[in-house]
Amino acid sequence: MSKIPYKIYLNESEMPTAWYNLRADMKNKPAPLLNPGTHQPMAAEDLAPVFCEELIRQELDNDTPFFEIPQEIRDFYKMYRPSPLVRAYCLEEKLGTPAKIYYKFEGNNTSGSHKLNSAIAQAYYAKKQGLKGVTTETGAGQWGTALSMACSYFDLDCKVYMVKVSYEQKPFRREVMRTYGASVTPSPSDTTNVGRQMLERFPGTGGSLGCAISEAVEVAVTSEGYRYVLGSVLNQVLLHQSVIGLETKTALDKYGIKPDMIIGCAGGGSNLGGLIAPFMGEKLRGEADYDIVAVEPASCPSFTRGKYAYDFCDTGMVCPLAKMYTLGSGFIPAPNHAGGLRYHGMSSILSQLYDDGYMRAVSVPQTEVFEAAEKFARIEGILPAPESSHAIKVAIDEALKCKETGEEKTIVFGLTGTGYFDMVAYEKFHDGKMTDYIPTDEDLAKSLATLPVID
Amino acid sequence: MSKIPYKIYLNESEMPTAWYNLRADMKNKPAPLLNPGTHQPMAAEDLAPVFCEELIRQELDNDTPFFEIPQEIRDFYKMYRPSPLVRAYCLEEKLGTPAKIYYKFEGNNTSGSHKLNSAIAQAYYAKKQGLKGVTTETGAGQWGTALSMACSYFDLDCKVYMVKVSYEQKPFRREVMRTYGASVTPSPSDTTNVGRQMLERFPGTGGSLGCAISEAVEVAVTSEGYRYVLGSVLNQVLLHQSVIGLETKTALDKYGIKPDMIIGCAGGGSNLGGLIAPFMGEKLRGEADYDIVAVEPASCPSFTRGKYAYDFCDTGMVCPLAKMYTLGSGFIPAPNHAGGLRYHGMSSILSQLYDDGYMRAVSVPQTEVFEAAEKFARIEGILPAPESSHAIKVAIDEALKCKETGEEKTIVFGLTGTGYFDMVAYEKFHDGKMTDYIPTDEDLAKSLATLPVID
Repeated sequence: MSKIPYKIYLNESEMPTAWYNLRADMKNKPAPLLNPGTHQPMAAEDLAPVFCEELIRQELDNDTPFFEIPQEIRDFYKMYRPSPLVRAYCLEEKLGTPAKIYYKFEGNNTSGSHKLNSAIAQAYYAKKQGLKGVTTETGAGQWGTALSMACSYFDLDCKVYMVKVSYEQKPFRREVMRTYGASVTPSPSDTTNVGRQMLERFPGTGGSLGCAISEAVEVAVTSEGYRYVLGSVLNQVLLHQSVIGLETKTALDKYGIKPDMIIGCAGGGSNLGGLIAPFMGEKLRGEADYDIVAVEPASCPSFTRGKYAYDFCDTGMVCPLAKMYTLGSGFIPAPNHAGGLRYHGMSSILSQLYDDGYMRAVSVPQTEVFEAAEKFARIEGILPAPESSHAIKVAIDEALKCKETGEEKTIVFGLTGTGYFDMVAYEKFHDGKMTDYIPTDEDLAKSLATLPVID
Repeated sequence: MSKIPYKIYLNESEMPTAWYNLRADMKNKPAPLLNPGTHQPMAAEDLAPVFCEELIRQELDNDTPFFEIPQEIRDFYKMYRPSPLVRAYCLEEKLGTPAKIYYKFEGNNTSGSHKLNSAIAQAYYAKKQGLKGVTTETGAGQWGTALSMACSYFDLDCKVYMVKVSYEQKPFRREVMRTYGASVTPSPSDTTNVGRQMLERFPGTGGSLGCAISEAVEVAVTSEGYRYVLGSVLNQVLLHQSVIGLETKTALDKYGIKPDMIIGCAGGGSNLGGLIAPFMGEKLRGEADYDIVAVEPASCPSFTRGKYAYDFCDTGMVCPLAKMYTLGSGFIPAPNHAGGLRYHGMSSILSQLYDDGYMRAVSVPQTEVFEAAEKFARIEGILPAPESSHAIKVAIDEALKCKETGEEKTIVFGLTGTGYFDMVAYEKFHDGKMTDYIPTDEDLAKSLATLPVID
């Protein structure tokens, strides 16, 4: 076997030509979306006022294992993909671990994260449908930036509702989105009914993804030629993000590497679901076994402390109900800086897999995450996003366990993005002003009490 | 010939193992550094209080064509290199040009630019010499960040003097440097004699690279176990940066591509000198011809409006004299946002080559540069640094000329870095608040009057 390079890049000819639909291999399919009024499963026509047609088809299809990636999207992918699978030689050496550590680095594009993989797909289908534009929400700003880039490429209008706390912490994100021609509104805002209600009930709130979603949906359904697009949680997003896992698997296979453990941060589940897709497929088909680990912030612990139940996807309760691990749609997380992980729920696909025991989850407090982030930056050279650093933290912990036991485990983790727009959070960390917020059982009981009752 | 991919990545085995010293092929060598007091050429021992020993050897060697890259540096390079040579298919299509456009993208690392190529080399030699730490100046912050990363890797202390106007425009750069453990001081500061004098003479000044250099040098020569390192201008820096051009040439050769034109932005000359090195070598040896273009800001036009003469490298006049195209060391450029191009002088190597007619230079105003930057971001997906955007502007202009003439020129330009920390400048541009500053002939005459008289 040839020596494994620091970075494994695939050739263009080795890049995936189809997305992999994990659901096709699931025995227990993810539960269907329900109409929030009637509690009946949503059909394509019910979703059509909100979502693009082709994306609805992808959303509802639990059986087709592969969806061909249209040539236009593959061409766009070629501008920033394949992303490197990096062998963390330096980190291994500094930790003194016998573990072999790899990370799939999705941050080498201007959006700074993996979000572009789905943004370009969603913009493509919106354009193909002849729409004028799309609306969306963004937390950390990565999704909003990605969508702005994608819309600019296909000449679509792009309206972004950005969670207010992120908007204020990341003024430069707004400018990046403006560079790509998007409009950016801090949420809650007075531009929507939902936003105005939130501002009345919680003046001074920093907002939440759930509320920003409600605002974006409201604008989409009330504007001619617009639809709403979402950067995580949905089945279609996990489908698009499977490109991460497919590239990872091809790169590993090329060098005959079989991972023991796959680790990803989990907010709504887009990165984790994409990274693990082909590996989970093998596991579901009984062809291989992997220890698959979701890492979530202790401040927003959907998997580890949430409930598996139908819930609203948004605070305004205008979206369909999804069955998922949730903290309750009324949960407003503390102004945790990992903005991308501040969502109250979790992908239905991942929720079902977790419930069926195919993966496990851990939660980690913020200051430990930043300690791992700084360590990683100094050793591997890449300044990671706070979201990604959750996976780094657990990967380092696992590598140190290997040091104790002497196990030569192969650990793969997802490095979803860079932290260049998170320097306010890093500054707080450097100045010792970062705090760990962990919701009390009472907090959670209160927000879980808002779950809808489904017969 | 195989179809040329969007991005040409070399394999690790194709990466350069030696830096190329362009001076070895120059008939007219760059003029030697002179002692500012005696006006005699500086010998190694004269430079030893300021610079690291091995770096002095590299600085003074005009004859050795190749310097082997130490294994430790090659290993570090593998963490973020090879950098991609990108075929700008999308840009070509949108411009409707028959030209073939390539860019060597050096921004895919946390320092955000090519500066890391020399930073890691300089930190390595400082460590090898047993030093405690190094001092430096930074303009845009790219060099300071790069050096912080390199020092952190080799566990060296790092003191950065950052031009005040950049320090204020880029608060997050400071935090990145702090993440890597560096100390950052806005210049002019009251921590040095030179700084205090500047503050007295020009209260409220935004500073300049020349002044920040003086401060960093003063601290280096007065602190035990410290030396000064510089991110541009010097011969050693161009030597290290030759890795850019060597990779570019290997990538082009792999696909049988011969460029007609090579374009790079020029501040102190580190990127341009590195990018063109092997091509200029061929030109000097009469083996090939290339149209080589330096692009500088109209606000700081050393090549196009400066004088080829001995000058001080710094405002405090503590550094050796260098013969170069200069605007005078007293020149304080307007608060142009391309911080990395705000230096009054230019690499001695490039100055000599320019004077000998081996390359040409153009200057471009700032707003046109940002127009090109935004266009490029929207089409090619990468949000470029203002410095790099100077090269983009001219590459686009040249491609549009080809559209008129029908010429199928192959254009290669250097995309030195990303603009993620330049969003204040982009914001000004979006808000229509950006201005073009072009020094008057009187301004230049005044600063050129400060040139030292050499017999």
